[in-house]
Amino acid sequence: MAAEPKESPANNPGLHETPDEATKGYFMQQTMYRIKDPKVSLDFYSRILGMSLLKRLDFPEMKFSLYFMGYEDTTAAPSNSIDRTVWTFSQKATIELTHNWGTESDPEFKGYHNGNSEPRGFGHIGITVNDTYKACERFQNLGVEFVKKPDDGKMKGIAFIKDPDGYWIELFDRKSIGAVTQTA
Amino acid sequence: MAAEPKESPANNPGLHETPDEATKGYFMQQTMYRIKDPKVSLDFYSRILGMSLLKRLDFPEMKFSLYFMGYEDTTAAPSNSIDRTVWTFSQKATIELTHNWGTESDPEFKGYHNGNSEPRGFGHIGITVNDTYKACERFQNLGVEFVKKPDDGKMKGIAFIKDPDGYWIELFDRKSIGAVTQTA
Repeated sequence: MAAEPKESPANNPGLHETPDEATKGYFMQQTMYRIKDPKVSLDFYSRILGMSLLKRLDFPEMKFSLYFMGYEDTTAAPSNSIDRTVWTFSQKATIELTHNWGTESDPEFKGYHNGNSEPRGFGHIGITVNDTYKACERFQNLGVEFVKKPDDGKMKGIAFIKDPDGYWIELFDRKSIGAVTQTA
Repeated sequence: MAAEPKESPANNPGLHETPDEATKGYFMQQTMYRIKDPKVSLDFYSRILGMSLLKRLDFPEMKFSLYFMGYEDTTAAPSNSIDRTVWTFSQKATIELTHNWGTESDPEFKGYHNGNSEPRGFGHIGITVNDTYKACERFQNLGVEFVKKPDDGKMKGIAFIKDPDGYWIELFDRKSIGAVTQTA
């Protein structure tokens, strides 16, 4: 059994080992969630998490805007607006923040659901940082809300923070992740 | 105004243009959501979407398992289990499927919430494919459930399918995305 990795199809019913040729070139491009106020979220994702605004799309008829955030270097982005859209959709791992106009100033708006209380579903996004402890020290100094600090609980070196809408963001680094999950 | 791109800080209150040096090297590594039955989800994400199982982590004390899925080539993955974890967490844009043991056989289990009905929050993940129409023809032949076919509605060339738990997955390609969003 030692020769058979935990990830083999033999150990994972349902798993197919060889991807269908038709799916060649596919990649995971975006994770979308809704935000109440772009001013607050843009500040959080750029100033605190270090992401850039790759592309903004506005749909006035349907009264919403999309903000694609990511760690790509936007100085490499084309200046033409359509080319910039294509460039954005050619990048892996972007965050698509959806703003339905008006929520930011609507006193009746109850906020969005982060998926970690009933009804559950979505859990979090996760960011690989260079050093979880250093990153968390900085986040704490910047007033970020924590769900779990790196030394809370059993999973040392892994942290969870909240974005302005309450969505969870996990933080880990390459040094700590192997050790903390070694028996898993 | 033509010289000022829509994505500039001047047009986006809250946005900071220069990422803090402390965030250098950060990248978006994972998107986590919960699944009812790994056998069904592994089949869907591997056979239908063409992803591989990058890493599996089991936590018997807490009765859950994590399945990291992605488009990376697992033949490049280290054979040592801990090294493979570190390798997985070094990849951008993975999907982390969380299985709380027992849901797959629990008649009382009501299923997970996809975030697109009340209470809303998370919306979808999105995959860039080579040709949305071709991809959707294949998905249809494989019996995948559609939320939106590529020619439904105004947004031609963009589709939404459902995964086995009802989570939405958007599909688009580089050819169609520029045209369909050109006025946005």
